[in-house]
Amino acid sequence: MKNRAWFYSSIVVVFVTLFFFSVSFRNNDISNQKEGSPDRVINSASFTSDPLPSWNDTEHKKAIIAFVERVTKEGSPDFVPPAERIATFDNDGTLWSEQPMYFQFIFTFDRIKAMAPQHSEWKNKQPFKAVLENDVKTVLESGMDAINEVVMTTSADCTAEEFAQIVKDWSLTAKHPVTGKLYTEMVFQPMLELLAYLRNNGFKTYIVSGGGIEFMRPWTEKVYGIPPEQVIGTSFKMKFEMRNGKPVIVQLPEINLIDDNDGKPVGIYQYIGRRPIASFGNSDGDLQMLQWTTAGNGLRFALLVHHTDAEREWAYDRMSPYGRLDKALDEANAKGWTVIDMKSDWKTVYPFGNK
Amino acid sequence: MKNRAWFYSSIVVVFVTLFFFSVSFRNNDISNQKEGSPDRVINSASFTSDPLPSWNDTEHKKAIIAFVERVTKEGSPDFVPPAERIATFDNDGTLWSEQPMYFQFIFTFDRIKAMAPQHSEWKNKQPFKAVLENDVKTVLESGMDAINEVVMTTSADCTAEEFAQIVKDWSLTAKHPVTGKLYTEMVFQPMLELLAYLRNNGFKTYIVSGGGIEFMRPWTEKVYGIPPEQVIGTSFKMKFEMRNGKPVIVQLPEINLIDDNDGKPVGIYQYIGRRPIASFGNSDGDLQMLQWTTAGNGLRFALLVHHTDAEREWAYDRMSPYGRLDKALDEANAKGWTVIDMKSDWKTVYPFGNK
Repeated sequence: MKNRAWFYSSIVVVFVTLFFFSVSFRNNDISNQKEGSPDRVINSASFTSDPLPSWNDTEHKKAIIAFVERVTKEGSPDFVPPAERIATFDNDGTLWSEQPMYFQFIFTFDRIKAMAPQHSEWKNKQPFKAVLENDVKTVLESGMDAINEVVMTTSADCTAEEFAQIVKDWSLTAKHPVTGKLYTEMVFQPMLELLAYLRNNGFKTYIVSGGGIEFMRPWTEKVYGIPPEQVIGTSFKMKFEMRNGKPVIVQLPEINLIDDNDGKPVGIYQYIGRRPIASFGNSDGDLQMLQWTTAGNGLRFALLVHHTDAEREWAYDRMSPYGRLDKALDEANAKGWTVIDMKSDWKTVYPFGNK
Repeated sequence: MKNRAWFYSSIVVVFVTLFFFSVSFRNNDISNQKEGSPDRVINSASFTSDPLPSWNDTEHKKAIIAFVERVTKEGSPDFVPPAERIATFDNDGTLWSEQPMYFQFIFTFDRIKAMAPQHSEWKNKQPFKAVLENDVKTVLESGMDAINEVVMTTSADCTAEEFAQIVKDWSLTAKHPVTGKLYTEMVFQPMLELLAYLRNNGFKTYIVSGGGIEFMRPWTEKVYGIPPEQVIGTSFKMKFEMRNGKPVIVQLPEINLIDDNDGKPVGIYQYIGRRPIASFGNSDGDLQMLQWTTAGNGLRFALLVHHTDAEREWAYDRMSPYGRLDKALDEANAKGWTVIDMKSDWKTVYPFGNK
């Protein structure tokens, strides 16, 4: 291998890597992006200004760019004022991975184990017993009410702000069983670029996830550039009370919103108060969000991420217990929504490379 | 009167008016303000850069400016990053008037009367009968459940988007019984300046009102520069459904959140996910919001508008059925919160002048 060709290839690899690193860094330096920013990328054909460098140059990438250029071009019939450029993104399977199971489930298992020394009764109480024994199958079979009880338990004994710190600590230490990476590193590089590209074009980007709002808000700003106030998710009721003379917010054992399926358009309307012009998902849980988005007046955009890459990420759709994509795939095909084929549309999956 | 002094006075009045109009226009051109904007006003002592021209030069105005300068000064121990500069404002009595009764009550009366031809049963059903007869006393005495039923009825037979249009139409036509002005003109000029001043200093300004979220969102962006996604209020549960093959959001006859008293910090936490560093109110309904805001770490600011000006607006506090200010006034005095004396702190009340 130590021949001249190998030497030159190495040089090329180093430069290409540095180039992508710099592009990716530029695209992710997003905390202060403005509406109508002068950074707006007009000519996507030029190599140095490619806003989506981790995307292959396919029809799907072209469809994204064409949509953004049409709604941002002043005087065009498709022009949308910056204030109305709302884009909503599912999280699990759309912005980060969701295999071998939803990452919040893994957090929940970790948290229950950490709480177990104070709860000796869990040794004989299902589904807590199964959680402590890593028996995922029994937990899943215990039904949604039981699973909700477990999830609720992870945040029941602390204030909202204390729970946020617990999630933050976990996000900085817990590692994925397959990649050995932090869960917050298992975010999709092409989607980070898409978020930044939309924001550079005056869009306000939101997360609308079936996952817990309290589980996402502590890290989404750092990881996605999406501040807590632009994160919508499943939530519990809260109450205000005085604890040791200090006012705190604490959780009540009652669901406030299941932000999945029918609940997604409801969550969007309650939190944002207007209809998105673009929505991004990957599963049947996103179907109603995409239906509601595309039923609005004027140009609209709907996209599904299809997990087709068992080698670099995971491959699953109609039969998966996590992120099942069945009805939404049929409707996307029937209505001409953009369906990303991860294997052919994305040059790379994660910021660190691939699985 | 037609002497030379009068002539010169008139010239001065015209120029001063034009000057304030231009300042006010500049401060209210707010739809696209940015974090860390270069418009930031540093030297408030200079006449031309006064960010709060409708405020008299009192200790209260100085307290506002001192707070903003301390949290925005990089390197200062009180510095707060732009993303955390959250300011929450009550609406009724803080940003606009609330006499002779909450403006949403007036809307509700108007709307029930408009719906009455389709509801002949209301002629004999309380409290609808009292609404149709303008019998405010009977309506108020009917209790909160009955009042909620009436309010709910105003938006029960239409989609969320249809109701928003009804509110918008009302806001553009209905006139206040005392001033003859549109309700959306009865907003406080000094508070409009304060909103703009905060935004020019990187703050994100929110409404957190006991009023209905659906009643405010259709007009707050135009009137206050506050987009719908930054309006939190009392809300009903919603559901998603297909109507004539089109997806719509419709209201359910169930309260989602009473965003008043204890509900204000809860609403803030659910919608924003972080604690404000500054809160502005005028009544006991704002007390918990101010308590929760000021209990956070670092420099915090709490302000109450005290309605002391029967001539230019209204004068009321401990005994008023609308915007009662009693416990919160005691706590403000005990804790040193800023209490605005409308009569002495404000040069003018409304953009059009005074009552």
